[in-house]
Amino acid sequence: MRVVIAPDSFKGSLDAPSAASAIAEGVRRAIPGAQALALPMADGGEGTLDAVLAASGPTATRRTMPVTGASGLARIAAWGLVAGERGGVGVLECAQVVPITDAAAMAAPVSRRSTVGLGVQILALLDAGVRRMMIGLGGSSTNDGGAGLLRALGMAFIDARGEAIEPTPEGLARLDRVDASGLDARLAGCEITLMSDVNNPLAGASGATAIFGPQKGVLPADVDAIDSVIARCADRVERALGRRCADRPGAGAAGGLGFALLALGADLRSGAEVVADLLGLDAALDRADWAITGEGRSDAQTLLAKGPSIVARRARARGVPVSLLSGAIDAKALDALAPAFDGCFALPAGPATLGDCIGDAAALLADRADALARLFVASRLRAC
Amino acid sequence: MRVVIAPDSFKGSLDAPSAASAIAEGVRRAIPGAQALALPMADGGEGTLDAVLAASGPTATRRTMPVTGASGLARIAAWGLVAGERGGVGVLECAQVVPITDAAAMAAPVSRRSTVGLGVQILALLDAGVRRMMIGLGGSSTNDGGAGLLRALGMAFIDARGEAIEPTPEGLARLDRVDASGLDARLAGCEITLMSDVNNPLAGASGATAIFGPQKGVLPADVDAIDSVIARCADRVERALGRRCADRPGAGAAGGLGFALLALGADLRSGAEVVADLLGLDAALDRADWAITGEGRSDAQTLLAKGPSIVARRARARGVPVSLLSGAIDAKALDALAPAFDGCFALPAGPATLGDCIGDAAALLADRADALARLFVASRLRAC
Repeated sequence: MRVVIAPDSFKGSLDAPSAASAIAEGVRRAIPGAQALALPMADGGEGTLDAVLAASGPTATRRTMPVTGASGLARIAAWGLVAGERGGVGVLECAQVVPITDAAAMAAPVSRRSTVGLGVQILALLDAGVRRMMIGLGGSSTNDGGAGLLRALGMAFIDARGEAIEPTPEGLARLDRVDASGLDARLAGCEITLMSDVNNPLAGASGATAIFGPQKGVLPADVDAIDSVIARCADRVERALGRRCADRPGAGAAGGLGFALLALGADLRSGAEVVADLLGLDAALDRADWAITGEGRSDAQTLLAKGPSIVARRARARGVPVSLLSGAIDAKALDALAPAFDGCFALPAGPATLGDCIGDAAALLADRADALARLFVASRLRAC
Repeated sequence: MRVVIAPDSFKGSLDAPSAASAIAEGVRRAIPGAQALALPMADGGEGTLDAVLAASGPTATRRTMPVTGASGLARIAAWGLVAGERGGVGVLECAQVVPITDAAAMAAPVSRRSTVGLGVQILALLDAGVRRMMIGLGGSSTNDGGAGLLRALGMAFIDARGEAIEPTPEGLARLDRVDASGLDARLAGCEITLMSDVNNPLAGASGATAIFGPQKGVLPADVDAIDSVIARCADRVERALGRRCADRPGAGAAGGLGFALLALGADLRSGAEVVADLLGLDAALDRADWAITGEGRSDAQTLLAKGPSIVARRARARGVPVSLLSGAIDAKALDALAPAFDGCFALPAGPATLGDCIGDAAALLADRADALARLFVASRLRAC
């Protein structure tokens, strides 16, 4: 029995490698001798850096550098370097610089948070000779349309009086024009791949502010005003750079970082697809009898570009059964999720609070995987 | 695909037929064309009458009669008659007469509750010419050692002054002797089969009062005193009837009704085994690819003579995979339960209260059965 175990992280309780370990433990308990191959997934958000590094082999190294967080406080951000030609590939994750889990940043108003730190980090990589970068978008606390990043890379944001303004929603309310003449020239020679699980455009009803703003602290009453500021800023940036991309899928990733990096010529890919490729998921599935994926909470979003849905599509394409084992499954999404997996399962073994599920996640995952594996193997034994 | 669906009742939410229907719905949703054979189980408690009648074919009829409940109030009790020689077979269920769900009875002290109503019901069947009876024991509110039943059938309970006393724990505290001379002579010609899921003796540390008394309202401080009263009464009954049976497994069923009926010469069987035989479970399993069983809450007791464990043993004996799908599974019992089933599963799809699970039981059961069935069938397709 070969089982590919490729969960995303269980946010709030287990990172993806820990979730994969727990599931593998349960599978081996139920099926002694089973080969449980752990391939922890990521989708561009928190954990993407580690997933990419784990998948990139011995030439990949994990490093750290001090950066400026979303509210201006210094913090230490991890990044990675995969050695190779032309300075190798730098691996960045915006959740390392402006994470939504940063309490200090979240205490500041979202209208003053900025992605300038990620731009400075890119500059540092350029200084180090790196010309290829992979940047995970997701899990950010910011909603600045990527203006902070563009400012750090040399773009000026100017008001009607000709004065430079802060590249934040608050400052950009006074934006008159941008000046791209100071943009770092080395960017033109860069290959930047963005990794995201978001297909939203930058602005409008399905844009970053309307959809992701509220969870970052944008008040419902402020959504329209901030969305207009970001849209207007994007219009100026597009004109200055000669590239229309605010409406492209993923422009709304990470509070508009997607837009800013697309405007600089980056390519945007599904983070989960990129990670799956790096992990060699297809080859692993070719030899597998069964795959198990999962995440903290599965809902209708899961069927978009989330890890479990990428794992499911690739497994199904090879005729490999693929089951979903998540912390919880939104009952309203079950009708849509059910056909995409060979069984959708959740953690609790009875009435349980969210706290129970989070606190006992590893043990519950192992127990549930054990149960699934017993059913799976019994079914095969009877059939053959 | 032939699936035998043989759950016990989900107490507090679904009777066994409703649980079986919900599971069957989920299986058919996942595997169109699957033959889902519903064989609702019972173990002697509430639902046993209906399970026996459903399994007994067209000669079985469901009837009702007024009886005296545990606290003396009249109530309507269902019973059944399976037509046949010698008046046919009468099917009784003590949970119809003295149910623990009877709020009026539970409001009275357990020391005043009596099983006299079940004795009167037996008399009525004797009057109707019935000489074979099946009596489901379980789900009773009483803890009278069956003295009430014996009283109704003609046994006298007498104090030191020679006066008749109430056949309740309270009255029996003054018991000096019993007089069996008035016992209905027709009982000698009766065949009575008791159906129970309890192996406890009548008295002592694992007896009816110590183990089941507290859930019926026996205060911890009163356990020893009531246990002594019941044990002393049993001693007198045994001497009078010339049959030692207080220590036999099942004597402690239904607050000692097991003892009283064993003392009258009844045979005690596992309720679940009797129901399984009547349902033709073995023959159904012989043609099955998979079996699903379950109950409201599974714990270490499940592995004794409960329905799910009987279904599991019979399925395993035939090489048929058998999965457990219960409302909840006691985490402490999971290590013991896991090897007995091909996967143990519960209702919630995430954090959920007991109220959620009970209120949504049918929908949750269907959804979970759907998930199991998808995994089961996918596993087979891959293997073959």
